Amino acid sequence: MNEITSILKNQNYQIKTSFWIDLDGNRCFGKGKMQLLELIDKTGSINKAAKEMKMSYKKAWTMISELNAQFSSPMVVTQSGGKEGGGTVLTDEAKILMKYYIELKERFEIFIEQETKNLNQ
Amino acid sequence: MNEITSILKNQNYQIKTSFWIDLDGNRCFGKGKMQLLELIDKTGSINKAAKEMKMSYKKAWTMISELNAQFSSPMVVTQSGGKEGGGTVLTDEAKILMKYYIELKERFEIFIEQETKNLNQ
Repeated sequence: MNEITSILKNQNYQIKTSFWIDLDGNRCFGKGKMQLLELIDKTGSINKAAKEMKMSYKKAWTMISELNAQFSSPMVVTQSGGKEGGGTVLTDEAKILMKYYIELKERFEIFIEQETKNLNQ
Repeated sequence: MNEITSILKNQNYQIKTSFWIDLDGNRCFGKGKMQLLELIDKTGSINKAAKEMKMSYKKAWTMISELNAQFSSPMVVTQSGGKEGGGTVLTDEAKILMKYYIELKERFEIFIEQETKNLNQ
């Protein structure tokens, strides 16, 4: 038993966290943009993705526009014409970013699970 | 170089985090309550601490009251009378909680520093 354990009421304490990526001191990628990318990937449309997140198209567009500028290549591109009549798609770079975010989230989860275990032991 | 590095513009990306402790699924201790305890310790007064945090006495009192109920013993007690004319002081349990929080913060910092290093490498 460590010191902190002596002041706990039970073993239901949990360490929680939120995390994000900053660029030059400004938030550049986190939960919200991750969800937006996932929904664009699912729906093929910024408009539909914005609606699912209950945000305006303008707000979603601003987020995408920031994101496109904050990495070496755009994350989202709009294709026009073609058999499918165009649409909005994620680039390979967006897929790399999303994969990184998911893996980082897993590492955070392992970290806080261990901390939670140590806290309640 | 890992995959994610290939999409970065420069080496000024940083992993950032905030963290807190939940009890039974509700937030019970984090940055705000930590600051409140520090200020009560410094000023000997919930009222003065609340003013420094630009919150109402009622809000500060609610936070303390929650905190007192969320651990096995109260964190803050009000002493009346005596040579010093009473005052509000932290209990030993509060000192244990604050020490734990500071050490947890340090471990989070080490974790995100390493993640930031890996990201930009």
